[in-house]
Amino acid sequence: RINGDRLWDSLMEMAKIGPGVAGGNNRQTLTDEDGEGRALFQKWCEAAGCSMGLDQMGNMFAMRAGSDPDALPVYVGSHLDTQPTGGKYDGVLGVLAGLEVIRTLNDLGIRTKHPIVATNWTNEEGTRYAPAMLSSGVFAGMHTQDWAYARTDPEGKKFGDELVRIGWRGEEEVGARKMHAFFELHIEQGPILEAEGKDIGVVTHGQGLSWTQVTVTGKDAHTGSTPMPMRRNAGLGMARVLEKVDEIALSHAPHAVGAAGHIDVYPNSRNVIPGKVVFTVDFRSPELSVIEDMEARLRVEGQKIADDMGLEIAFEKVGGFDPVAFDEGCVSAIRKAAERLGYSHMNIISGAGHDACWINRVAPTAMVMCPCVDGLSHNEAEEISKDWAAAGADVLFHAVVETAEI
Amino acid sequence: RINGDRLWDSLMEMAKIGPGVAGGNNRQTLTDEDGEGRALFQKWCEAAGCSMGLDQMGNMFAMRAGSDPDALPVYVGSHLDTQPTGGKYDGVLGVLAGLEVIRTLNDLGIRTKHPIVATNWTNEEGTRYAPAMLSSGVFAGMHTQDWAYARTDPEGKKFGDELVRIGWRGEEEVGARKMHAFFELHIEQGPILEAEGKDIGVVTHGQGLSWTQVTVTGKDAHTGSTPMPMRRNAGLGMARVLEKVDEIALSHAPHAVGAAGHIDVYPNSRNVIPGKVVFTVDFRSPELSVIEDMEARLRVEGQKIADDMGLEIAFEKVGGFDPVAFDEGCVSAIRKAAERLGYSHMNIISGAGHDACWINRVAPTAMVMCPCVDGLSHNEAEEISKDWAAAGADVLFHAVVETAEI
Ligand SMILES: NC(=O)NCCC(=O)O
Ligand SMILES: NC(=O)NCCC(=O)O
Repeated sequence: RINGDRLWDSLMEMAKIGPGVAGGNNRQTLTDEDGEGRALFQKWCEAAGCSMGLDQMGNMFAMRAGSDPDALPVYVGSHLDTQPTGGKYDGVLGVLAGLEVIRTLNDLGIRTKHPIVATNWTNEEGTRYAPAMLSSGVFAGMHTQDWAYARTDPEGKKFGDELVRIGWRGEEEVGARKMHAFFELHIEQGPILEAEGKDIGVVTHGQGLSWTQVTVTGKDAHTGSTPMPMRRNAGLGMARVLEKVDEIALSHAPHAVGAAGHIDVYPNSRNVIPGKVVFTVDFRSPELSVIEDMEARLRVEGQKIADDMGLEIAFEKVGGFDPVAFDEGCVSAIRKAAERLGYSHMNIISGAGHDACWINRVAPTAMVMCPCVDGLSHNEAEEISKDWAAAGADVLFHAVVETAEI
Repeated sequence: RINGDRLWDSLMEMAKIGPGVAGGNNRQTLTDEDGEGRALFQKWCEAAGCSMGLDQMGNMFAMRAGSDPDALPVYVGSHLDTQPTGGKYDGVLGVLAGLEVIRTLNDLGIRTKHPIVATNWTNEEGTRYAPAMLSSGVFAGMHTQDWAYARTDPEGKKFGDELVRIGWRGEEEVGARKMHAFFELHIEQGPILEAEGKDIGVVTHGQGLSWTQVTVTGKDAHTGSTPMPMRRNAGLGMARVLEKVDEIALSHAPHAVGAAGHIDVYPNSRNVIPGKVVFTVDFRSPELSVIEDMEARLRVEGQKIADDMGLEIAFEKVGGFDPVAFDEGCVSAIRKAAERLGYSHMNIISGAGHDACWINRVAPTAMVMCPCVDGLSHNEAEEISKDWAAAGADVLFHAVVETAEI
C-alpha cells in the first residue's frame, strides 16, 4: 500500500503555489506559478532518486530506473496546471500519485524490470491556450509543435514564448519516447462514483469532445438612438445560439452534454449594442456520430439564427478528440488491482478529456478514477477525501507495478 | 455664420488624440488621452481669449466675458470623452462648436451682454465609469461628489483617484455656477434626420433611460463530466434573460428600446460551465411609465427564469434618468435660428442621454442636432459631413448669441 498521509501532505504543499481566491488554485499553464509548481515537483522527484527529462513542450519525465536496460518504461502521471478558478486535485492528484508510486517502491526497496516515469504534461486545461491536452496531443502526433507554439493566450502571448519565459522548454524531441504503458489517476469530476458508493472507477472509455469557436458579427451602435428594427445585435444572436446549444445537447440526453464556458463581447460597453461576440461551444458524447450530429446542427441552426437577424456568423473548430476506448490489458490491470485490494469499483466512462486520451493512441493506456464531493470540479470548492486519494493511488500502484514487472 | 472649415479642422486635430483601431477614437474618460484632449482644448480656449475654470469633477468652463458684470453666463458645450470604439464627433462636435461660437464672436468683434462659457463635461459616456453623464449629474445635484469619486472602472481604479492622476481635478465647488441658459449641439446618433432629409433637429424632448445591472449566479462546474440535469449554467440563464429583454422592449414598440451592451462571464474558461454572469440591461423610452414597466418586468421575468433553472439572480439599478422636456424658450431660440438661417429642420426626441438632460434641471436648456451617416454612432465608423457640422454650429451660434444678447 502507498503512504496516504505522504500523498496528502504533498497535495497540500503543492496547493500553496498559485492559491485561488476561494480555497482552490489558480496555477494556469506557463505562468510563474506553473514554473514554481514544476520546480517543487522536480525537487521531490530528485529527492526520490529520479532523473528528470524535459522535452520541447515542457513535458516533465521523472525516471526511476528499472532492472532491464532494454525494457521500455511504464509512464504514470497527469498535469500540474489548473483552471483559473480550479481545485487542488484536478490533475495534481495524478502527478503526485505517480511520484507516490516511486516513493513507495523506494520504501519497499523494490526494483521493477521496466523503468517507471512520473510525468507532468504541459497545458492540459486548455483555458489559457486552447485546445486542452495540448502537449500530450503534440506528443501523440495530433498537433505539430510549431502549431502549438503559435497558440496565443487572451493577451496575445504565444505558447512558445511563454514556455521559454518561465524557463521550462527542454531540448528533448517531443514524442520520441516509447512507452510500455501509460496510467493516469484522476478525480472523476462527475457525480457517479459518489452516488454509487464506489471507491474506484475503472475507466473503460472516454467521451469525445468538440470545441467550436463561434463568432457572431453585427454592428456596434448606440443602445438609445438606434431604432429596434435597425439593430444588428450580436449579443442577442449569441443568446439565441446558446439556447440552441442547450436544445441540441438535450435532444441526445443522456448521451451528450453541451454548453459555452467562454464568451467575449465587443466592445463590451453598457450603451453600445454588441458588434461582435466570440464564444466557444463545448459538445461531448461517448458516441462519435452524436458529436458529429451536434456539430453539424450547431452550424446549420446558428446560420439560420444569424440569417434571420441580419448577422454574420463564423465557426472554427478549436479543439476536439474522438471518443476513446482504453487498452483492454491496462484496464484489466486496474480492475484486478482494485479487486485484489478489496476496493469497491465499477466501470466508468470519463466525461472529461485527459492526457490519457491522447497517449492511448501511441501506447497501451488506462485510467483510474476516484470520487469527488458532489461531482464538483473546475471550481475552487472541488474536494476529495484522503481515503479516496489513497485508494486511487493504491490501485494505481498495483496496476503500475504489475505492468512494470518485479 | 461660423467658420465651418475652422470647426472641421479642429475636429480633425482633436481626433488625432486617442486614435481608435478603425478610424475613430478611443479617448475614454480620465485616461492619459483624455488629459491630452483637455490640454488641447484649453490651449485653444486661451488663444481665443477665454479664462479657464475647472471644478472638482474636472468639468472645464472657458469663459468669454460679457458686457454686463451682473449677467449670468450662457453655457454651451458637451463632452470630449469617447467610447472605447467611438467616433470623432459624439460629444466633441458640441464642445468644439462652443469654442467656434466664441471664435466667431471674436472675428466679428461682438461683445455679448451675458458672458459665454464653452464647456467640457467629464465622463459623459459612462463606459469606464457608470453611470453616463456622471459629472453633469453631480453638477445638477443628482449624485453626490463622494459617490462619484468612489465609482470604479473594470480594473478597480476609482474615479476620484484617476481624476487626480491625470491632473484635472480643480478647486471649484461643483454646481456652484449659476447659468442663464445651456445649449448643446450633438450628432443625432440615430437615422431620423438623414432619412427625413433635414439639416437640423430641434430637440424638444429626451427619452429616459434605465440601466439595471443583472448578476446571475449558478455554479462553476466541468463542461464534460457534469450531467445536464445537475448543471446550474449562469450563461444559459443570461441568454434567456437577454431574449426576454428584447421581447419586453419590442412589446412597447416603437416607443421603447432595450439591449445589453456589457456582459462579463466568469470564470470565462472553455471547459467551465459559467458560475456567474454580470450584464447591464439598457432600457429607454420617452415615457416614464414605459420605462418603469420594462424595469419591473425585467425583475419579474428574470426571477422566473432563474427560479426555473436553479439559479440566483440579483438586480441593481446602476444608472438612469427620467424623460426630459427641454425649456420652451431655449427650444424656440433654436427653431427660430434654423428658420432665420434657412436650414430645413424638424422637432426630434433625443434617443441618447446627454449632459443637457441633467443641466435642464438647473437651468433653461435645449439641444440642436445634426444628422449622422446611417444613424451610426458608438462605432468608429461614425461619420458626418462638414456641411452638417457647420449648419449645426450656425444654429447654435445664433441661438446662443440671441440668448446672450448683444
Ligand atoms: N480533466 C479535465 O478537466 N481536462 C480538461 C479538458 C476537458 O475539458 O475535458
Ligand atoms: N450621447 C451619448 O451617447 N451619451 C451616452 C449616454 C447614453 O448612453 O445615452
